[in-house]
Amino acid sequence: MKKKNKKVNAAILIIGNEILSGRTQDKNVAFISNWLNSKCGISVNEVRIIPDVEKTIIQNVLKLSKKFNYVFTTGGIGPTHDDITAQSISKAFKVKYEYHKEAYEILENYYGKKKFNDGRRKMAMMPMGSKLIYNPSSAAPGFITKNVITLPGVPSILNSMIENCKRYLIKGLKIHSKTLSLYTVESNIAEKLGQIQIKYKKFVDIGSYPFFRLGKIGVAIVTRSTSLIKLKIVNKELIKIVKSKKIKTLKI
Amino acid sequence: MKKKNKKVNAAILIIGNEILSGRTQDKNVAFISNWLNSKCGISVNEVRIIPDVEKTIIQNVLKLSKKFNYVFTTGGIGPTHDDITAQSISKAFKVKYEYHKEAYEILENYYGKKKFNDGRRKMAMMPMGSKLIYNPSSAAPGFITKNVITLPGVPSILNSMIENCKRYLIKGLKIHSKTLSLYTVESNIAEKLGQIQIKYKKFVDIGSYPFFRLGKIGVAIVTRSTSLIKLKIVNKELIKIVKSKKIKTLKI
Repeated sequence: MKKKNKKVNAAILIIGNEILSGRTQDKNVAFISNWLNSKCGISVNEVRIIPDVEKTIIQNVLKLSKKFNYVFTTGGIGPTHDDITAQSISKAFKVKYEYHKEAYEILENYYGKKKFNDGRRKMAMMPMGSKLIYNPSSAAPGFITKNVITLPGVPSILNSMIENCKRYLIKGLKIHSKTLSLYTVESNIAEKLGQIQIKYKKFVDIGSYPFFRLGKIGVAIVTRSTSLIKLKIVNKELIKIVKSKKIKTLKI
Repeated sequence: MKKKNKKVNAAILIIGNEILSGRTQDKNVAFISNWLNSKCGISVNEVRIIPDVEKTIIQNVLKLSKKFNYVFTTGGIGPTHDDITAQSISKAFKVKYEYHKEAYEILENYYGKKKFNDGRRKMAMMPMGSKLIYNPSSAAPGFITKNVITLPGVPSILNSMIENCKRYLIKGLKIHSKTLSLYTVESNIAEKLGQIQIKYKKFVDIGSYPFFRLGKIGVAIVTRSTSLIKLKIVNKELIKIVKSKKIKTLKI
């Protein structure tokens, strides 16, 4: 992974009717996003969740791969009829959908020649020229095609593969963040927060998120910046306000 | 809510840096999608998660409101500087961003005249002509502007408001679903599943989702259809296959 001194961004494309229908709670967005930011300095700027429909996958892959440095897709690379991600990415980039020699060998070795049926062989099919992302959990690899990284949908398998994506990514500037949890309501501090945000607009992004914890209402003030020094300056100002308003904090 | 004998769809637009960054796990997609399908017969066909950036909100609101019957937005309607959803929707539809008389009265009454500060008053500002979605938890209402329904991001507050959306929605055909949980691997049943999907392509959608439960690997076969009769026919065929392959089921 080369280190670059600039902002690098990504989109996540969750492919799967089961997430859209609400049957399954997605957990991959938070995991991938946290990993990308903390380990690679890459920010996720957009997420889309779409159905297992070829035309929709093609349109979204093309759109997002043009707009962002990287696109991470999850879901739809298993052995069943509704797993159409690899085929759709081939069509999107107009490259052949074919057996990847190494993937074929990995899977044949994993299942054994006799049990290597059509469904299992399908998991070795991918867009021509793709590079493998190894899977230490269940053999079937993910892959990278141009700037699109294709991963499975099952969170435990995806999690076990994520470190193997690193070698293909250019590293960006890490975004540092600090959270100040206050026992107050947002509307009590809204005006002051707004003033600080205007003052440090160029360097620090301030977010305000209500929460409920142990039966009490609170607000988490989250500051983010590529500069740790700027982050500390803004947090000092925030703490001044908190003290002047006699607001209780969860941690300072 | 008028009843119509047709398919009605929706998109969900999650607005918030805290979800994109992975700091907060989204719970609203699954909740809204389940509610829409089970209570209103409305299918969610696309979800997008975007940052609190005015231009991005405007583009996505316009795009999705053209493409789907309804758009549900969550997040960004609180009292702080980073809450810009209402203002952005006004700009998207080129209507005035102004105080909603009833919303103003509700909030003034809730906070009391003395404590009704700028941040709190901001929550009564919305696109001209919007209709209110009442909030039994914390007073600040959501609203509907054309086909865009704007709700808060905090799940417990959103959940308490969702029934108040119903009066504005046209009811569609409910999609029924059945789940068959099998103790086998996907690649063992992929071929047969594919054959059944082709046979009933027009009426029933079959999804296959691996799971891990109590240390065992399994597959959930989810069938969906607007016809309960067709769903039963397909499930009978599925059970035949399961029995012929001597696969253990979690429930039949």
